[in-house]
Amino acid sequence: MQRHVFFVSDGTGITAETLGNSLLTQFEGLEFRKLTLPFVATPEKARATVEYINHIAASDGARPLVFSTTINEAARTVLRDCKGLFIDLFDTYIHSLEQELGVQSTHAQGRAHGMADGGRYTARIEAMNYAMEHDDGQSTRDLSKAELILIAPSRCGKTPTTLYLALQHGIFATNFPLLEEDLEQQRLPKALQGMQDRLFGLTSDPERLSQVRNERRPGSRYASLAQCAYELRQAEQLYRRNHVPFVNSANMSIEEIAATVMQEKALRH
Amino acid sequence: MQRHVFFVSDGTGITAETLGNSLLTQFEGLEFRKLTLPFVATPEKARATVEYINHIAASDGARPLVFSTTINEAARTVLRDCKGLFIDLFDTYIHSLEQELGVQSTHAQGRAHGMADGGRYTARIEAMNYAMEHDDGQSTRDLSKAELILIAPSRCGKTPTTLYLALQHGIFATNFPLLEEDLEQQRLPKALQGMQDRLFGLTSDPERLSQVRNERRPGSRYASLAQCAYELRQAEQLYRRNHVPFVNSANMSIEEIAATVMQEKALRH
Repeated sequence: MQRHVFFVSDGTGITAETLGNSLLTQFEGLEFRKLTLPFVATPEKARATVEYINHIAASDGARPLVFSTTINEAARTVLRDCKGLFIDLFDTYIHSLEQELGVQSTHAQGRAHGMADGGRYTARIEAMNYAMEHDDGQSTRDLSKAELILIAPSRCGKTPTTLYLALQHGIFATNFPLLEEDLEQQRLPKALQGMQDRLFGLTSDPERLSQVRNERRPGSRYASLAQCAYELRQAEQLYRRNHVPFVNSANMSIEEIAATVMQEKALRH
Repeated sequence: MQRHVFFVSDGTGITAETLGNSLLTQFEGLEFRKLTLPFVATPEKARATVEYINHIAASDGARPLVFSTTINEAARTVLRDCKGLFIDLFDTYIHSLEQELGVQSTHAQGRAHGMADGGRYTARIEAMNYAMEHDDGQSTRDLSKAELILIAPSRCGKTPTTLYLALQHGIFATNFPLLEEDLEQQRLPKALQGMQDRLFGLTSDPERLSQVRNERRPGSRYASLAQCAYELRQAEQLYRRNHVPFVNSANMSIEEIAATVMQEKALRH
């Protein structure tokens, strides 16, 4: 039996998706069919949404799960009556927070992922432009602006981590590849000398790296297990010699690498 | 009075941050000092975390808010006794979900933002590589692989939206600039002809676009209000003529643009 899951919001629906998906990872062996319904900000849209949910409930023969972060009162009142298990993420906590903080909540909708915090938003876009322009060591202009410089052999996760840190956290991050001459001579790329405090290294497992590189250039020397093992061994030695903190990214997601780097380098704004 | 807010998890802490931050946007005029403590996956780490929270509670003279998504039982048991308002995002909902779904939850930690879903994860990385290689029309190779092609005059938000869709949703997206000759002659870039079904247009307000362009090239013709107004007017006419759906991104965040595009083009996987 397939269960429908709805993420409903008068904003983007990102918060409802994030918490809902986290909770659903705790249930294995079930099949969920997920649908996000953003921008449900009027009673009319809420009524159409309820009709849709009720239609699905009737044809599935099982209650859909409905995770909602809808703030708009009129829309919420309508949504609450749908024939799904209605989980209202705001209702649950807002009262205990009001009590704890001693103030009323504003009930202002769409603030979490909108432009409400203009300064933070601009920083994210600037950080992303910076990351794009400097990716993979392609520019050393304004390198001193970088709060973080990731270094690693090719395909250990530098670029996605850099972009994630910029887009999600507004961190001015960039990355530099470690080339064979750097690894051989056990020295940091010239442009990075004197910037040790901003460096963070990535390494991987030879098997994993070889697999990733083979998808890109099948059968190449670049992708061979021997070459990958050599580069990783040399990189780790280089990190240790230069007191560059590093992490093995072989079994980590971008989010996990980013969380690790931010914690180690105290980078949260 | 400043309130400390802790986001605690045995994973990355992303879910705790997302819901916690969403809730806090509902309280204006208060000052929050936010700290994320990820990877609290053992009783020892939990004890150190509690000590830290209790220390802050004592010196602030106000209970910190603690949003937790810690699954690990042993760590949670320790955390629950901290001297903060402890908001356990899993405890709140997991029981009603178990009841509704008729199965026990697995209590497997760190699944939400880890590598548990390998296929989805690989898709995100491939989509990101694709977005990087094709950004701003720099390559027309494999253009047929794109599920979405954003078009717009320069600086309307194409690149950040494309990268966000790739990184967060694994959508193969790319973007093409509309150059002056395209706008003048009111025709789509040649490489995009026959791909109308994948196109989505962005427009903006002349004042907003001029402001953004002026940050990049102050005082240039490119950034002038007249030039921006001309390009946007022509772009909107081009979209209409070619039946390309579009949205005005002037007051929208990347997340809001992305949610809108995904909904309009039915792009969710």
